[in-house]
Amino acid sequence: MKLVVAIIRPEKLEDVQQALAERDVYLMTVTDVRGCGRQRGYTEVYRGTEVRIQLIPKLKLELAVNEAFVEATVEAIVHAARSGDTGTIGDGKIFVLPLEDCVRIRTGERGSEAIGP
Amino acid sequence: MKLVVAIIRPEKLEDVQQALAERDVYLMTVTDVRGCGRQRGYTEVYRGTEVRIQLIPKLKLELAVNEAFVEATVEAIVHAARSGDTGTIGDGKIFVLPLEDCVRIRTGERGSEAIGP
Amino acid sequence: MKLVVAIIRPEKLEDVQQALAERDVYLMTVTDVRGCGRQRGYTEVYRGTEVRIQLIPKLKLELAVNEAFVEATVEAIVHAARSGDTGTIGDGKIFVLPLEDCVRIRTGERGSEAIGP
Ligand SMILES: Nc1ncnc2c1ncn2[C@@H]1O[C@H](COP(=O)(O)OP(=O)(O)OP(=O)(O)O)[C@@H](O)[C@H]1O
Ligand SMILES: Nc1ncnc2c1ncn2[C@@H]1O[C@H](COP(=O)(O)OP(=O)(O)OP(=O)(O)O)[C@@H](O)[C@H]1O
Ligand SMILES: Nc1ncnc2c1ncn2[C@@H]1O[C@H](COP(=O)(O)OP(=O)(O)OP(=O)(O)O)[C@@H](O)[C@H]1O
Ligand SMILES: [Mg+2]
Ligand SMILES: [Mg+2]
Ligand SMILES: [Mg+2]
Repeated sequence: MKLVVAIIRPEKLEDVQQALAERDVYLMTVTDVRGCGRQRGYTEVYRGTEVRIQLIPKLKLELAVNEAFVEATVEAIVHAARSGDTGTIGDGKIFVLPLEDCVRIRTGERGSEAIGP
Repeated sequence: MKLVVAIIRPEKLEDVQQALAERDVYLMTVTDVRGCGRQRGYTEVYRGTEVRIQLIPKLKLELAVNEAFVEATVEAIVHAARSGDTGTIGDGKIFVLPLEDCVRIRTGERGSEAIGP
Repeated sequence: MKLVVAIIRPEKLEDVQQALAERDVYLMTVTDVRGCGRQRGYTEVYRGTEVRIQLIPKLKLELAVNEAFVEATVEAIVHAARSGDTGTIGDGKIFVLPLEDCVRIRTGERGSEAIGP
């Protein structure tokens, strides 16, 4: 089991949901976050160095998936979250974390069976 | 050390806090999130397939705990977050992730000692 | 690769950003969260035991970094997020999680190359 965490542009949520649904991935948790990098944002001089600070609204998607779904999940997100034909700076990141256990609260099921529908 | 992440119904927060406190688990981080699944929500036809999309307000609880507290933490959440006697669809999920290190910023303590009170 | 997750006081964000920028760490994701512990907050009597509940606004920073940056990242945050000379209760926590993969959505790059600029 893995926890796939994706930071995407907010306007890409529906495209990503649909790309995931085509691969039978439906369950996820969505959080409003702000991304911080160097492009855009405002500039400050700090100890003689110019520091550019940005806090841009993004969405964080978290998807707990079984091993067999990891690559399809990553590919669906990469494909659907890209802007334009060749992608644009700020399109986002995906992180894959190990997941040791999962519990469905309603039934008490654990592990792979508890991940999905 | 593990990071226990629970997605629960917002109205269950106090019950879960009290169940955790009875097991001497007090420290946690709470985030407003939206859960996405197939029940309820709205329906769209996409490439000939009906896709149901939902974004329902949930709370995410994150608890870094030492090994000896993992099962008690999971059990407390399962017990307190369930709706009704037999549980109801949408009651939530718990994820257990490996945690390699923890640092208490005030003291600089690291590892198991830094987790709790 | 690791995912460094820090819970800090909201007023410390800019100091932490600058301390990280001095160590060439620029990319991070920021979330509004609430911290729950035992100090302050309100008190309730539950089954004869006094339970103190608090939900205090904090920021969660998430930074995916390559191995060579983990210690510098942790030290920068500890240093910049501390209040006063010796630190104050509630200054925050840092968690280090294993990170198995990273993907830059724009380019499709994976692993260590995808983490940073
Ligand atoms: N290393 C990282 N750690 C944590 N969050 C990150 C990291 N890299 C990117 N993010 C998050 O993802 C969002 C989008 O990142 P972005 O797509 O700009 O990555 P990038 O590496 O700068 O790639 P690009 O060159 O395509 O812009 C950021 O605003 C931030 O929220
Ligand atoms: N695999 C998953 N990945 C990420 N988040 C999930 C996952 N499964 C559930 N969640 C989160 O937990 C919330 C509650 O899930 P829910 O209880 O409906 O799970 P379920 O597997 O559909 O079980 P049930 O059949 O009892 O409804 C979701 O709205 C979502 O935020
Ligand atoms: N074990 C934990 N699991 C999850 N979140 C935690 C944990 N410990 C602390 N936090 C988060 O970090 C925030 C700040 O914690 P805090 O600095 O009060 O930690 P502490 O262990 O009580 O140290 P101190 O004695 O310095 O107050 C909390 O409000 C909570 O959001
Ligand atoms: Mg960028
Ligand atoms: Mg459900
Ligand atoms: Mg404290």
